Amino acid sequence: MNSRQTVRISPQAEQYPIIIGQSLESEFKTLARSLDVSKVLVVVDRNVAEKQHDLLKTISDAFGDAKIFELAPGEQSKKWDTLKAIIDFAQSHNPDRNTPLFAVGGGVTGDVAGFAASIILRGIPLFHVPTTLLAMVDSAIGGKTGINHETGKNLIGSFYQPKAVFADISTLDTLTDEEFVCGFGEILKYAAISDPVIADILKNRSVKELRENKSQLESIIQRCVKIKSTIVARDTRESGDRAFLNYGHTFAHAMELILGYGTISHGQAVYTGMVAAGYLSEEYGAMLNHEVIQDFAGIMDIDPDLFNFTASDLVEAMKSDKKRKDNNLRFVLLKNYARPYLHEVEEIAHVEEAWNKAVGFFRDQKKKQSANS
Amino acid sequence: MNSRQTVRISPQAEQYPIIIGQSLESEFKTLARSLDVSKVLVVVDRNVAEKQHDLLKTISDAFGDAKIFELAPGEQSKKWDTLKAIIDFAQSHNPDRNTPLFAVGGGVTGDVAGFAASIILRGIPLFHVPTTLLAMVDSAIGGKTGINHETGKNLIGSFYQPKAVFADISTLDTLTDEEFVCGFGEILKYAAISDPVIADILKNRSVKELRENKSQLESIIQRCVKIKSTIVARDTRESGDRAFLNYGHTFAHAMELILGYGTISHGQAVYTGMVAAGYLSEEYGAMLNHEVIQDFAGIMDIDPDLFNFTASDLVEAMKSDKKRKDNNLRFVLLKNYARPYLHEVEEIAHVEEAWNKAVGFFRDQKKKQSANS
Repeated sequence: MNSRQTVRISPQAEQYPIIIGQSLESEFKTLARSLDVSKVLVVVDRNVAEKQHDLLKTISDAFGDAKIFELAPGEQSKKWDTLKAIIDFAQSHNPDRNTPLFAVGGGVTGDVAGFAASIILRGIPLFHVPTTLLAMVDSAIGGKTGINHETGKNLIGSFYQPKAVFADISTLDTLTDEEFVCGFGEILKYAAISDPVIADILKNRSVKELRENKSQLESIIQRCVKIKSTIVARDTRESGDRAFLNYGHTFAHAMELILGYGTISHGQAVYTGMVAAGYLSEEYGAMLNHEVIQDFAGIMDIDPDLFNFTASDLVEAMKSDKKRKDNNLRFVLLKNYARPYLHEVEEIAHVEEAWNKAVGFFRDQKKKQSANS
Repeated sequence: MNSRQTVRISPQAEQYPIIIGQSLESEFKTLARSLDVSKVLVVVDRNVAEKQHDLLKTISDAFGDAKIFELAPGEQSKKWDTLKAIIDFAQSHNPDRNTPLFAVGGGVTGDVAGFAASIILRGIPLFHVPTTLLAMVDSAIGGKTGINHETGKNLIGSFYQPKAVFADISTLDTLTDEEFVCGFGEILKYAAISDPVIADILKNRSVKELRENKSQLESIIQRCVKIKSTIVARDTRESGDRAFLNYGHTFAHAMELILGYGTISHGQAVYTGMVAAGYLSEEYGAMLNHEVIQDFAGIMDIDPDLFNFTASDLVEAMKSDKKRKDNNLRFVLLKNYARPYLHEVEEIAHVEEAWNKAVGFFRDQKKKQSANS
């Protein structure tokens, strides 16, 4: 059975369903009957198009006429020219304001295709069909869309809610282990800021075990979606509580900036960032049981040799973040698990110390692994 | 004294002020104190920048540091590359989410700069400073932004409300008579669909008289802004009543498409379209006193020799409108003045007849003028 959560992202916005299950064929058919349109637009990651024939066929069959645009995989597609190419593709099929656009793929596809949907004819109906764990628990939920600018990530975009999200868990089978694990950075973030039970459920499992237990996966995704949509509903335009979703991300974005995107996965960067943010929270009085997060170092598989930069380099990268409002560094910290708060950090030394402790932790892990193998 | 209307465009949206007056220096200073920002971005039509030194200086002085981007005048600036140029300009000044963008100019400037503001950092605060009569009564109000696509007008854009609108009537002094009169197409549209008193106030005046009577102008602009904001508030995303604002526009857009933009001004096209829509309303039972609108043929200065295409060409152009939902032609018609309704017209012959009557009217007018001169 598929599960269906109905979320209302803001008191003003229409509510919409997030459907999570292992075979969504009947859901697409139900949607097709209710939409009554003569064609749909589909923007799909090229790798996903190759692996997910069944999913694309389900959509084509349900809607009769699906016009398909294949997107080059990877962060490089979150750019101005790709946005224009999607718009040109859409216009070539003469859409009207009711023509739906399906974004089928991971976070990149959802971000750029969602942005396109928000500005074609000043907004056409958007449906997210996330095919990665990361997209299912994070990027497909909450209505942020966008592309990168030459001067920084996600600097152009919109807030635009989908009409529905279709998360078909069977699509996760085609991910590599690395792609699958990438989602755990954000999943453990939800554990840290809101629901430590998630970490309890998942701990001491191998990646293989985590992948095979489909009903557990489904229930974890449901929990994560619920947490994210509740937080976003309180703060659609990201002026307050939504910032809690950035736990670990100030460190993560700085790492990604220094290392270049792709060197470390986003999930690994967020995970490393959370380990550091845990130490930083301690500097401000938290008494955390670090193991709740650190127990997952094995499956997250972080290579500490990548961190061949100084703590001071990292702080400099944090300061260059384009979206900061002023000169202070703002962190999400924890009073305890499930008790996040925002803190403007003035003591740079604390940030550097927390980072050095995190790197130390991953070095120790690596030594233990070598000793065991 | 400046007048200040506070409008709330939708029950969900924040309300914002529309300030109409003849010297807005103190208003900008008050805003600058309340915003407390270190710099502002200004996108200004190049012609306006040349003519409105005082206005730009007022903004620069009020905010201290104004970064100015000059836009090439005319419809050609409503395009993808110009949008990108504005975004690059903004990013080069390292904006944060509170950095305001002022759109200073006519409808084109408001549309493209407003669109840019809506997608820079997923939306920065937008302030409209309309400098044409048309922009003051129409395009600066209601939150539509956008650019043209190779395949049609206004096919890419967003719904994005400004934080405030500053309409400085003294800027209208630098318009040519043609530019000034262009606003009367939309003003008379408000008369037709909502408030015939507007036509009563304005009739039998020369363009010179209309321009010189500043307090009358101010009061007319106030009436128009009130009508538009009330209609838009009922229907922000344009699914129902907002369509009434398109009275005369189905004809106008088709004319503009055939003639090419710039051959006839938008005001003239809308005016001609309203004369035709009046005749079409009659086909469906209205008993209209045509003089309410037709009395303005003199100041609108329509040249019927431009209409060197057949009624059937016009209908074909109407059918090619990219935003239509299906194959029927939808018109705003009048039961009487101030009583608009939407009608799907199946009898193409009625449309053609109404158009031919309108052309006949303008030919008669021209003959009378020649006879009198």
